[in-house]
Amino acid sequence: MDARHAILFEPVRIGPKTLPNRFYQVPHASGFGSAKPRTQAAFRAVKAEGGWGGVCVEYAPISQDSDEIPAIGADIWDDRDARALGVSAEAIHAHGALAGLELYHGGWSSPNGSSRAVRLAPSQLTSQLQWGGLAKEMDSADIARVQRDWVGAARRARDVGFDIVYVYGAHGYLMTQFLSAHANRRTDGYGGSLANRGRFWLETLAAVRDAVGGDCAIATRIAVHGDSGVPGAEGLPGIHIDDMLALVKMADDLVDLWDVTVGSWPEDSGTSRYYPEGHERPWAHRVKEVTAKPVVSVGRYSSPDLMAEVIRSGAVDLIGSARQAIADPFLPRKITEGRLDEIRECTGSNVCILREETFNHVGCVQNATAGEEYRRGWHPESFPAAADTGRSVLIVGAGPAGMECAVVLGKRGFTAVHLVEAEPEIGGRLRWARRLPTLGNWGRIIDWRAVQLARLPGVQVITGRRLAAADVLEYGADLVVIATGSAWRGDGVQPGYPDPMPGADPGLPHVLTPEQACAGKRPPGPRVVVYDTDGYYVAPGVAELLAAEGFEVTVITTFSVLSPVSDQTLEGDMLRAHLHRAGVSVSHATTITGIGAGSVTGHDRHGEPWSAACDAIVLVTQQVSQGTLYTELADGQALAAAGISGLYRIGDAVAPRMISEAIFDGHRLAREIDAEDPAQPSPYRRERADPA
Amino acid sequence: MDARHAILFEPVRIGPKTLPNRFYQVPHASGFGSAKPRTQAAFRAVKAEGGWGGVCVEYAPISQDSDEIPAIGADIWDDRDARALGVSAEAIHAHGALAGLELYHGGWSSPNGSSRAVRLAPSQLTSQLQWGGLAKEMDSADIARVQRDWVGAARRARDVGFDIVYVYGAHGYLMTQFLSAHANRRTDGYGGSLANRGRFWLETLAAVRDAVGGDCAIATRIAVHGDSGVPGAEGLPGIHIDDMLALVKMADDLVDLWDVTVGSWPEDSGTSRYYPEGHERPWAHRVKEVTAKPVVSVGRYSSPDLMAEVIRSGAVDLIGSARQAIADPFLPRKITEGRLDEIRECTGSNVCILREETFNHVGCVQNATAGEEYRRGWHPESFPAAADTGRSVLIVGAGPAGMECAVVLGKRGFTAVHLVEAEPEIGGRLRWARRLPTLGNWGRIIDWRAVQLARLPGVQVITGRRLAAADVLEYGADLVVIATGSAWRGDGVQPGYPDPMPGADPGLPHVLTPEQACAGKRPPGPRVVVYDTDGYYVAPGVAELLAAEGFEVTVITTFSVLSPVSDQTLEGDMLRAHLHRAGVSVSHATTITGIGAGSVTGHDRHGEPWSAACDAIVLVTQQVSQGTLYTELADGQALAAAGISGLYRIGDAVAPRMISEAIFDGHRLAREIDAEDPAQPSPYRRERADPA
Repeated sequence: MDARHAILFEPVRIGPKTLPNRFYQVPHASGFGSAKPRTQAAFRAVKAEGGWGGVCVEYAPISQDSDEIPAIGADIWDDRDARALGVSAEAIHAHGALAGLELYHGGWSSPNGSSRAVRLAPSQLTSQLQWGGLAKEMDSADIARVQRDWVGAARRARDVGFDIVYVYGAHGYLMTQFLSAHANRRTDGYGGSLANRGRFWLETLAAVRDAVGGDCAIATRIAVHGDSGVPGAEGLPGIHIDDMLALVKMADDLVDLWDVTVGSWPEDSGTSRYYPEGHERPWAHRVKEVTAKPVVSVGRYSSPDLMAEVIRSGAVDLIGSARQAIADPFLPRKITEGRLDEIRECTGSNVCILREETFNHVGCVQNATAGEEYRRGWHPESFPAAADTGRSVLIVGAGPAGMECAVVLGKRGFTAVHLVEAEPEIGGRLRWARRLPTLGNWGRIIDWRAVQLARLPGVQVITGRRLAAADVLEYGADLVVIATGSAWRGDGVQPGYPDPMPGADPGLPHVLTPEQACAGKRPPGPRVVVYDTDGYYVAPGVAELLAAEGFEVTVITTFSVLSPVSDQTLEGDMLRAHLHRAGVSVSHATTITGIGAGSVTGHDRHGEPWSAACDAIVLVTQQVSQGTLYTELADGQALAAAGISGLYRIGDAVAPRMISEAIFDGHRLAREIDAEDPAQPSPYRRERADPA
Repeated sequence: MDARHAILFEPVRIGPKTLPNRFYQVPHASGFGSAKPRTQAAFRAVKAEGGWGGVCVEYAPISQDSDEIPAIGADIWDDRDARALGVSAEAIHAHGALAGLELYHGGWSSPNGSSRAVRLAPSQLTSQLQWGGLAKEMDSADIARVQRDWVGAARRARDVGFDIVYVYGAHGYLMTQFLSAHANRRTDGYGGSLANRGRFWLETLAAVRDAVGGDCAIATRIAVHGDSGVPGAEGLPGIHIDDMLALVKMADDLVDLWDVTVGSWPEDSGTSRYYPEGHERPWAHRVKEVTAKPVVSVGRYSSPDLMAEVIRSGAVDLIGSARQAIADPFLPRKITEGRLDEIRECTGSNVCILREETFNHVGCVQNATAGEEYRRGWHPESFPAAADTGRSVLIVGAGPAGMECAVVLGKRGFTAVHLVEAEPEIGGRLRWARRLPTLGNWGRIIDWRAVQLARLPGVQVITGRRLAAADVLEYGADLVVIATGSAWRGDGVQPGYPDPMPGADPGLPHVLTPEQACAGKRPPGPRVVVYDTDGYYVAPGVAELLAAEGFEVTVITTFSVLSPVSDQTLEGDMLRAHLHRAGVSVSHATTITGIGAGSVTGHDRHGEPWSAACDAIVLVTQQVSQGTLYTELADGQALAAAGISGLYRIGDAVAPRMISEAIFDGHRLAREIDAEDPAQPSPYRRERADPA
């Protein structure tokens, strides 16, 4: 280990417990909750194994009036829930780390859609979810009962082995609702002055400390006001820093660990598009200055040097991590072992959040094994040797899927893997995507794999060589994997319109595909329409690129908001504000069905005719697999004659999809290459209620 | 039983099985799937008990490439899944009904977000979900494998006791994707001509019949083209009636029961706002004319006379039901017993779908026990006697919660329940809501309860009497339930803006609340803004009401679409088209923060200043509990002195919420009135994975 990094490995005392080092995986959602006990345990345990000294399970609702369905939380309403979570505590302990549980009440943010309990809040105001029910203004019996529930949950957490219990006070949930003068309009002892607004939180801290403070460290998570200016999904900004510092002083005796978050969730989990590494540091430092207790804060830290410097500067005591610990559970171990170039850096794309929020199962674009530890038995650093590693493998296409497949085959011991790419560089669609404004850090997907590929003795990367079917047959490979990716359609085919759009011909000067725009093709006049039926990053990226060059850009989108997928990655509000500042106009809920000379035509949200004058259009409608090579090869006789015993397709060549899923697909094929039918994903373990 | 209805109770042979009567609960989602086996079983069993001769479980995905997470389907991927579903088959059989399972593959509509399997479809086109991944164009191996999976699932279904297995071909899923010339662009034997496009479906039917046709009836669900003109959530219209009739003839020998749906899901589950009872009848009749096999179709049937007439006319053989069977599981029994006025008629509001889709747990505005059969042990027709039924109960307020509470207390044997309403009529907010355009059938909520209340000897309804706190204390009741409901705020308080809006004073002629608009207050000039931050039915209803009278109405909404909650009830597209036709304009993503003379001001989606000229504004911003009476009474000493041993609040008086949830709340209090703390919902049973 580099001596500069030794400070990261100092133990830190928190209340009655001692963290073995300064690496702390903060509580973050996974979609596993207490519903998938073994999945949860395996997901957290691998972080402890990788060297994180503290590992927390996610938010743990304490009662049925904090029911988060359809989201999955680590419900700890009763002893059976607690036993399910205890599986994680045990698994974390097995690797010498401390286990934390984030006891939680959502207040007005809890949908309670399954429990049907009334929502609770300090005052009968509303989040954006009001159609599901406004909140009950908590009376004194409610306040006392929620505090009893918190204590009960803390006892249960302690009894099943957790070392750290939280009084979760951040992100706009119940504690913050009490703290916020905006949300708390009470006239009793729990409203009005700062001390009164903080009373519910301080009382709860005291009660939890009384109950379990001798056995557990008491952590609390707070949200200080940040600078995003957007209210965020929870409908509440953080508390202003001056107020929060006053409260920290009031509560300091009751707390063993301050977990500092900044602003709303979209700011706290700020993506690399809009926030640099360490963006929360100044705020955490302010808290650190007024407390005698350890402070942890996140900030998408992936650089060991920066981490060490942040500790030395006195900004925080622990390096908090959620996304980086997903991307590389073994980051601490790699630092101790001096294997810095093996750190799989988080891209900051928030695909983990998209997957967890949308599908209740976390995933990662960098680490295909994230969330697959239990159900598929995958480990991020361990690769069982394949059955016959002498088989030669030809992978055609070095995009995300092809790169990943080659890396995993190499790690499984294959000795003759050729990764052949037609372009001069590896990376596939990421070659141009990483050059779109704000997307630079997505290039880490290529960079990490490039380093790995260079080190694997069994893998050879060959660029600038385009293989036709005959070339593949003559290549001499035993196994062939087609990873030729996808392209954006230039013919205007879009959802609901399977036939080409009249006038959509990217051979014309005024019709562009995204790839053409990135490769330098430019509109023949100043007024450009970017037409988006995709809804994610490509249309905004191309729009910003052209706007920065002085084009008058209008995004026409079939969606009701620009880039709805960016809302799943918490980027939506920031992205839209960013493009507005960049001078990009947007028309919503509009469909283009024809491209003419100097104009585009279609219809509006009501089906009424619509048209706009423009000098060019960029079509971000739909992708299409580049599958010809596979189709030409998929002839059993020719393959057999060429000595090819297996032909497979992975990634976008099968079906265009998110980059994380293309990488997963390449990883999966390499992991399951010895299965009876490697083309078909093997069954995986599912945690289910007992049928009888 | 009335002789006119006898035809409904004739047995019907379907393949190797015989349905005991013509009442058939078609497959419909519940949110329980195979994940909550006992919840599912209890929910279905009560329908069999209530007299439905055929009872189906919901859509059952056959493999991991039809993974519906975050929605919950009745996955039957393996034997353990099948055993979980077998609990339902057994429970349905216990009451003499046949049990059906709707074997399903979603094709490109399956998100596969948990399994991460590639989506499958006949061609690589896309639904609206393309950001999650376009589909793989199925090759011949995929087609054969899915057919094998279907057969495997059918065998498992048979082995655990299902009598009817489906080859689900409706609603835009995989079979329909093959059938649709829009979605199917294949050039092989599975694309092109109608016979080719139908080949996948016919082959699958034949394979399933070969495997289990001797033991099970083979049902298939088809979608014929309807008239809604909107593509629906699945992105595909039904197949044109002429094509479908040709296919029915081709497949008739392979099918034992035709389950006919119409158009897309929003049309098939058409709400009472836009579709009358029996709206699918003409389409089903067309199918019936070309088949030798029994036909079932839904149509929100609640009238026994109409049901019998539809059977006699030859339009269908079975009365299909989803929503009505939720609203009243005992409808068939009530017909046999001549208790027609006890039928709890479906309102056609689709709150069941909202609850199932949004919260993975079905519910019903008419039947508070729906979905609560297992977890809370509630039965729709059985009400355990309370501990001391001689206690006198005063319920203040005869809105949804108060009416329901009185009905349940009466059924539990209470002998002295007084339901006291300040207004001249019972019904609460529904009194005026049912008079909004298109909402007439929501009045069934009042009507059914009015009939019940009139029959319960222990309940007395007193209208036109407004009780003050002193009146309540002097009333002489042992228990007091406050159900005084909520009102729309006139002060402009809205999400994110907890302070009153400048100029918002409903005492002024140009500022209206929804209640005022319904009671007849009219704007002083023609240009009216309806300001909506609520997002459901009130703003569109008031807008339509005023537009019909000739006002120039613009809805200004903070949402990106008008009435986003109506998308949860499948009404969104129809509602928006309806209002567009009615001449109502809409401005989206706009916030009003001030009301002046002749104009309103605020900001647009980017925070830029915005204003509009108008003569009046209707404020549909937020509701507020009418809780003063409860607060005045909540003094232990005064209550004790008055001999009141329990004071409770229910419904909107606690917190404004959906009508279904207010009714649930009133029902729950009455069911749990003997609990240790009736104010606090008792724990309920949850089906969970085993923790260890």
